[in-house]
Amino acid sequence: MILEERIKKAIRDVPDFPKEGIIFKDITPILQDAQLCKDIVVDLSKKFLEMGIEGVAGIESRGFIFGQALAIEMNVPFIPIRKKGKLPYHVVSHAYDLEYGSAEIEMHTDAVSENQKILVHDDLLATGGTAAAAAELILMQGARVEAFNFIVDLTFLNGENAISKYSKNIITLARY
Amino acid sequence: MILEERIKKAIRDVPDFPKEGIIFKDITPILQDAQLCKDIVVDLSKKFLEMGIEGVAGIESRGFIFGQALAIEMNVPFIPIRKKGKLPYHVVSHAYDLEYGSAEIEMHTDAVSENQKILVHDDLLATGGTAAAAAELILMQGARVEAFNFIVDLTFLNGENAISKYSKNIITLARY
Repeated sequence: MILEERIKKAIRDVPDFPKEGIIFKDITPILQDAQLCKDIVVDLSKKFLEMGIEGVAGIESRGFIFGQALAIEMNVPFIPIRKKGKLPYHVVSHAYDLEYGSAEIEMHTDAVSENQKILVHDDLLATGGTAAAAAELILMQGARVEAFNFIVDLTFLNGENAISKYSKNIITLARY
Repeated sequence: MILEERIKKAIRDVPDFPKEGIIFKDITPILQDAQLCKDIVVDLSKKFLEMGIEGVAGIESRGFIFGQALAIEMNVPFIPIRKKGKLPYHVVSHAYDLEYGSAEIEMHTDAVSENQKILVHDDLLATGGTAAAAAELILMQGARVEAFNFIVDLTFLNGENAISKYSKNIITLARY
């Protein structure tokens, strides 16, 4: 069975989460299947090493799960991108709008180097707002947004439109 | 150089974070060194496979970073333990006291099975309150708390005292 089918078979639809009318794509059953997780990491690593990726930026919190596993498999640094106030050292910050209100994420100033080719990773692509903000942080520090990766892509929310100006290399594994 | 020395050399002391008078042990420079991360994962996996660990529970958010990498290396499930309201499916919850106020963490009800030998992982052991709460969640579901693991142990806070009643197998890599 191809990877996309195995992932889709594992993902669980949870109705009315986080609020009524939304069907949430729950990735936790993927995490129960260690062989599937390994296959996801090996498959993605091959693709991203071919692209010359030199660092993986994972977005808190669920982007930490596969982000570091990917970075280790590729033998490149892992860069945590966190919610405001969580990183202890000097940071760059970027605020962005959400459906209701706004959010702000941060990255350490010494997390990336000039022209370093960075992959932005998260578990799920929805509207793309957070991934775009992560891309802004990377550009602020003079590094390159070389690619994006998400396990799940809610294509009906057009997240790719929001991030394609940063990089056309958008790899998603399970598309809905 | 032994692993503990390499980890301690990488860790950065950040004064006055999160508040004045506290010296924060920043693990993010470890994440910049992919070979060190790989060596940490391989070293820990060997130890925990010998103990017969059958699942790794990682505590949100920093416990997700090495937790899933460990689980994949060991070929066992990864179980995310999250802050209240974040997990979409049916959950067990446990509230616990913090220095000021309280916190509550959750685990999916289908995340562990009866008698499954679980490792509780987080990046840092301080007072042990959160790790003890994670152990309670695992016991609630009939699984076993077989071991604890932390990259950093602030031994002067006596966290081991708070968790040793759940398991005597407490593996910490860098002790202060």
